[in-house]
Amino acid sequence: MGEVENPERVNREHPFDTAIALKPADTGDSAYIGHTHPAYANMVGPYGGITAATLLEAVQRHPERLGVPVSLTVNYAGPVADGEFTVAARPARTNRSTQHWSLELTQDGQVVTTATAVYAVRRDTWADTETAMPDVPAPAATPVTAMPEYVEWAKNYEMRFLDGAVPALDGAPESPDSTTTLWVRDAPLRPLDFPALTSLCDVFYPRVFLRRGQAMPAGTVSLTIYFHADDDALAAQGSSPVLARARSNRFGHGYFDQSACLWGTGGDLLATTHQLVYFKG
Amino acid sequence: MGEVENPERVNREHPFDTAIALKPADTGDSAYIGHTHPAYANMVGPYGGITAATLLEAVQRHPERLGVPVSLTVNYAGPVADGEFTVAARPARTNRSTQHWSLELTQDGQVVTTATAVYAVRRDTWADTETAMPDVPAPAATPVTAMPEYVEWAKNYEMRFLDGAVPALDGAPESPDSTTTLWVRDAPLRPLDFPALTSLCDVFYPRVFLRRGQAMPAGTVSLTIYFHADDDALAAQGSSPVLARARSNRFGHGYFDQSACLWGTGGDLLATTHQLVYFKG
Repeated sequence: MGEVENPERVNREHPFDTAIALKPADTGDSAYIGHTHPAYANMVGPYGGITAATLLEAVQRHPERLGVPVSLTVNYAGPVADGEFTVAARPARTNRSTQHWSLELTQDGQVVTTATAVYAVRRDTWADTETAMPDVPAPAATPVTAMPEYVEWAKNYEMRFLDGAVPALDGAPESPDSTTTLWVRDAPLRPLDFPALTSLCDVFYPRVFLRRGQAMPAGTVSLTIYFHADDDALAAQGSSPVLARARSNRFGHGYFDQSACLWGTGGDLLATTHQLVYFKG
Repeated sequence: MGEVENPERVNREHPFDTAIALKPADTGDSAYIGHTHPAYANMVGPYGGITAATLLEAVQRHPERLGVPVSLTVNYAGPVADGEFTVAARPARTNRSTQHWSLELTQDGQVVTTATAVYAVRRDTWADTETAMPDVPAPAATPVTAMPEYVEWAKNYEMRFLDGAVPALDGAPESPDSTTTLWVRDAPLRPLDFPALTSLCDVFYPRVFLRRGQAMPAGTVSLTIYFHADDDALAAQGSSPVLARARSNRFGHGYFDQSACLWGTGGDLLATTHQLVYFKG
């Protein structure tokens, strides 16, 4: 006899929540069990953003968590295979107002992803945003662009490209600049929280595609996020589009870097994020 | 009877090499023993750059190391106390051409610093530098600026500030921009290698000092480095000055971020580096 699904639960849960869902492992040693979700599949293994969000979720739901995330680094050591995985979350050190986490995602005892996170109790201080949101057309004035049909995970995001859209599959000119700017949010709509913001930080297709005018093998090896938003900023953002802009500093010897900013609809800088990406071509 | 020092060894070794020196721990489990060096002391504990370099050195000298560093993240969980420390270096996963490391610096069994590193065998690919070195006066045309006398670690660096020099101790105006640009290299001179480049990536004094025109409690909580240089680029650089430029995107709720580029004398982008910094004020 098959499992009887609870239709209310099925309707209520956003695919994102199902994708990052974790349950405590039987071992009870701060380990959690998760499962890959077909809606967030990428070329080889899942979308990197959903893996990063799942690792953060392990801290978010951990009983020893202190405060909110201020920094996260995720290292993609190998592809996550379709199916179950284990996330071990260890508070390596807890101070009065900061907490350092060591995380590891494993499958069949092999390390697939490593991560570290810094959490903190935030407090009011002097504040200033030096990198202002660029002056761009409003989301409503920018048409939604579909990603290529085979990019499964991208169907979970509403993307409105302002510049640097995905090059055409049948060949596009080279570009002298790697900048992409887009309005983006979860589809279907979902209020922004820390795991969702984490996932959004990896939403840019590889910059080398834009520069070379073509797709080629490429994958993130390390992703870092600095969270500037606190709970209030996330609540203010809700499910409105985020303005995301990324560019690279250097390509060479099989790797390139990428730096990006994500601003809330009102111009609040929610996160800055950086990654190093492998490419072949 | 006191130890007899070998004068030849004392003369040959640069303070940097002494500061990052590690010896295998008796436990033989990929752990190394190091010792803080008074020449790299900072306000509370050692200069963050020397700690990052020491963690990288643990991989550099590890018998299982594959290739060269492409990415490093160091999380400063607590101050390193003067004296001995242990660095555990674990190759979490080794692939055909990449290797992922998990690192931990401990003192008396307590975690003080966590880190992850990605190493890779680099190969020739298409290459381009999108963030060119700014057009600035040559090192010889830029006077050397001394850091405040009490900043012990800074005496190991020759710094030539082009803009955004350290605010005067007795008060300076606020600045609308957090950018600092300087020529910098080890003093006494030392050929650049991966640990030295790692240390240089943390050479910027806290950006909030510049914005606010005053010093205040501040410290790096997480530092990430993307290495664009390979062995050939480091050899070409030798002991010539590196052009280093840093700025922040956002300050608020007790933290600010910083992004920086380090170019070789000839304009080669050697590393991009990012950090999240705690501040109080």
